[in-house]
Amino acid sequence: MPTFAELVAARALPQYRRMTRTSDPALEELRSLIGARHVLTGTDMPPWSRDWAGHTEWQPRAVLQPADAQEVAAILRLANGCGLPVVPVSGNTNLVKATHANGTLMLSLARLNAIREIRPEARIAVVEAGVIVEALQHAAEAHDLLFPLSFGARGSAMVGGVLSTNAGGANVLRYGNTRDLCLGLEVVTPTGEVMNLMSALHKNNAGYDLRHLMIGAEGTLGIITAAVFKLFPRVRAHATAMVAVPSVGVALQLLNRLQDDTGGAVEAFEYMPRSFLDALLQRFPDIRPPFAERHAVNVLVELGARAPRDVTPGADGELPVVTQLEAVLAAGYEAGEVLDATVAQNAAQRAEIWARREASAQILRMRSPVVENDIAVATDRMEVLLERIETVSRAIDPGVENTGVAHLGDGNLHYVGWPSRDDPALCRAIQEAVEAEVIALGGSFSAEHGIGLSKRPAMAAHKDPVALATMRAIKAALDPNGILNPGKVLPDL
Amino acid sequence: MPTFAELVAARALPQYRRMTRTSDPALEELRSLIGARHVLTGTDMPPWSRDWAGHTEWQPRAVLQPADAQEVAAILRLANGCGLPVVPVSGNTNLVKATHANGTLMLSLARLNAIREIRPEARIAVVEAGVIVEALQHAAEAHDLLFPLSFGARGSAMVGGVLSTNAGGANVLRYGNTRDLCLGLEVVTPTGEVMNLMSALHKNNAGYDLRHLMIGAEGTLGIITAAVFKLFPRVRAHATAMVAVPSVGVALQLLNRLQDDTGGAVEAFEYMPRSFLDALLQRFPDIRPPFAERHAVNVLVELGARAPRDVTPGADGELPVVTQLEAVLAAGYEAGEVLDATVAQNAAQRAEIWARREASAQILRMRSPVVENDIAVATDRMEVLLERIETVSRAIDPGVENTGVAHLGDGNLHYVGWPSRDDPALCRAIQEAVEAEVIALGGSFSAEHGIGLSKRPAMAAHKDPVALATMRAIKAALDPNGILNPGKVLPDL
Repeated sequence: MPTFAELVAARALPQYRRMTRTSDPALEELRSLIGARHVLTGTDMPPWSRDWAGHTEWQPRAVLQPADAQEVAAILRLANGCGLPVVPVSGNTNLVKATHANGTLMLSLARLNAIREIRPEARIAVVEAGVIVEALQHAAEAHDLLFPLSFGARGSAMVGGVLSTNAGGANVLRYGNTRDLCLGLEVVTPTGEVMNLMSALHKNNAGYDLRHLMIGAEGTLGIITAAVFKLFPRVRAHATAMVAVPSVGVALQLLNRLQDDTGGAVEAFEYMPRSFLDALLQRFPDIRPPFAERHAVNVLVELGARAPRDVTPGADGELPVVTQLEAVLAAGYEAGEVLDATVAQNAAQRAEIWARREASAQILRMRSPVVENDIAVATDRMEVLLERIETVSRAIDPGVENTGVAHLGDGNLHYVGWPSRDDPALCRAIQEAVEAEVIALGGSFSAEHGIGLSKRPAMAAHKDPVALATMRAIKAALDPNGILNPGKVLPDL
Repeated sequence: MPTFAELVAARALPQYRRMTRTSDPALEELRSLIGARHVLTGTDMPPWSRDWAGHTEWQPRAVLQPADAQEVAAILRLANGCGLPVVPVSGNTNLVKATHANGTLMLSLARLNAIREIRPEARIAVVEAGVIVEALQHAAEAHDLLFPLSFGARGSAMVGGVLSTNAGGANVLRYGNTRDLCLGLEVVTPTGEVMNLMSALHKNNAGYDLRHLMIGAEGTLGIITAAVFKLFPRVRAHATAMVAVPSVGVALQLLNRLQDDTGGAVEAFEYMPRSFLDALLQRFPDIRPPFAERHAVNVLVELGARAPRDVTPGADGELPVVTQLEAVLAAGYEAGEVLDATVAQNAAQRAEIWARREASAQILRMRSPVVENDIAVATDRMEVLLERIETVSRAIDPGVENTGVAHLGDGNLHYVGWPSRDDPALCRAIQEAVEAEVIALGGSFSAEHGIGLSKRPAMAAHKDPVALATMRAIKAALDPNGILNPGKVLPDL
């Protein structure tokens, strides 16, 4: 819900008020298609008039709230016929201005919010695009199953959005990205036809894989209206530890040994450098430091036990999954590969360990100016990437402070740099230097947040030009009038 | 190597001999691009002049064997400029006439056969398209790692082909299809440009996922020249059993319980109906039947243990992974869900269990006429599918004998029907009736073999028309002159 101040701010926008006063034939037509009360204008629009972080505002022409895929299709047929741009939106939690919609129609999927069915024997869920991620998690839990996708915005992010951005999170290591969880899709094409790819199949080699083309396309090739997801056996218990190791390279060895020794039970492997923990303790003095000594390389390790034998307490009263984690860490300690470790003995200690990691959203944005990069390299390149970031950023600004957190098991670094002075050119130079090192190491300038408007310069600079041309050809072929989420993902020619 | 009889047969083709005698300016140009000895004509071509099963023969204009992606690109630039059709081929083991190339150029990837690198810490392999699947398996084993993709033709199938067809096999249940194993690709576009998607990243949301579009496109959208694959910790021991259960529905319950109790360690779950075992024992009287009694529903179950604790013999001398399997089966026996079970106690017994399953290629093709369908449904629809197949096929031909084997954990049935008389119209009617039931249950008419030429009628009849139109638009956009593997995958308009 918007605050009162936000509502006032929205009302004060003059261009918008003019619009609602004049007759708008396109809006009249849209009202007849989906009902007048589902065509929002004026003060009803503010929740869709800004991005999640509140950094950007815009003024949609109207916000449409269709009831189902057929109404979505009717809207797109009209929009395509008239050349009206349409920006789809579900939970609106993205971080790259992917729903920026100044003067255009916005199409909200919020009313397509049915969990159509959960089929526990087949371990699948059939859901509509407006279902909130957390609601799907709960629905799976009711059948003693797991929908593993999870991240900070799970309470407001919706299925359509997480598919359109191929959302990741902290347990991609074990379960994959959103695209790996999706078996089937229903998509409305830019020309307003409903495409039925709603299969619940683990094998289906019948032509081009349009499902994967639509996933991650950020609503520029079609509007996802429903999906079939895989569900998993639930995790019965966790074993969670904070571990200090001599280097990021040794951390990767530890990860591989844990995967080997547990048969692939690692659910999270999250890197926190000393600089991050220092900032954390400075900002929240009541947080306990993980170790008596400060270490350069700290890792949150979590195993997830699904088999009953791993969660039946042994003679010592301890869960076997915890004993297993302790054994690997003890061996690492003997070998000098683990400098220190604390293993959670109960839920409160586990929560404390996770609280440090989850404070990253606040910590990494607590200072300004800030340079942020959501980047990825192969796991065996992370150590050299961190070294090079240190070198190139200090060459530009000797006073820069570098920090961040990483989903180390995926090679995904959320880099943060705090430059020594507030100078946009300096910030840009650091950002670009970091990106250049990522590219030189075969990495990605957008690991899990996508492109939207924000990352188009990086697309233009670093994406393989043949791949870019191929993407443009596909966009032109599927959306010849360029009505769907125009200006997003693809940089201008 | 072709047999003498095959060489004679190829030499006897009159049209071919005329071609080699006349001068062919396009071939001269191709010789200058990649060297005359890599442009094969005449009697050098037979290995590429027929499909794997020997059912179909054709006459290529020439077979080109470029050395690298740059030469592939040069060939495609020339072919695109002149409108010359090009059919890519690697191991040529497909089952759907996907390399049929009458009068066209064939482009063999066999010389692009380097395993460029194995990076054990990052658990990736970087390979070229002509690498044989088994060679990659061995290269991974040398690093104590697993490349899991495996199927009957692994000794001749090549990486480029398995990517182009998104090959499956018996362990998709645990490791996924080929697309799930692939992190990056190098692709030459139909217009002869090299597209570099060779990342080794677990997260990379930088624009449309062209990798998944190329995988499974059967060489109609681009030619895959190299790839990055995931590798896995090796399996240290297997526990393998033959199990008889009262019904396919109970088999699915058993699978789910095994997954829950072992934390997802099921590597294979293969269904063999009584009709299959009867045919097997009739054809090979020296094979021991799995059980003293004959049961309607038999399943090969295999667990793969990766953790050391599961392969360290217990006090009874048995591997814990075997004890675990026996415990689930014993509980099932008590509950009436398992009718009989034999657990392999050594490698020879495991081999005997697998030999029954692997004889399916011979068993299912030993009689003629035969109706074959490679189909998939959601796992919880398999039982009803099998019932409906029985009903509809017998309505058409009361004397038909239905059998098959299934990757039950994936919902993938290799259906075989032996009609009572040799009548092509009857065979077609049974095939189409089976397909119609699959479609009615939300299934796929091509689970893992792809489309090629063979399955185009099913594509025309059953694929969502909006999806088909979208595929056609993509094909036209990326291959405007229609030179790449023309006529495959997409049915005629």
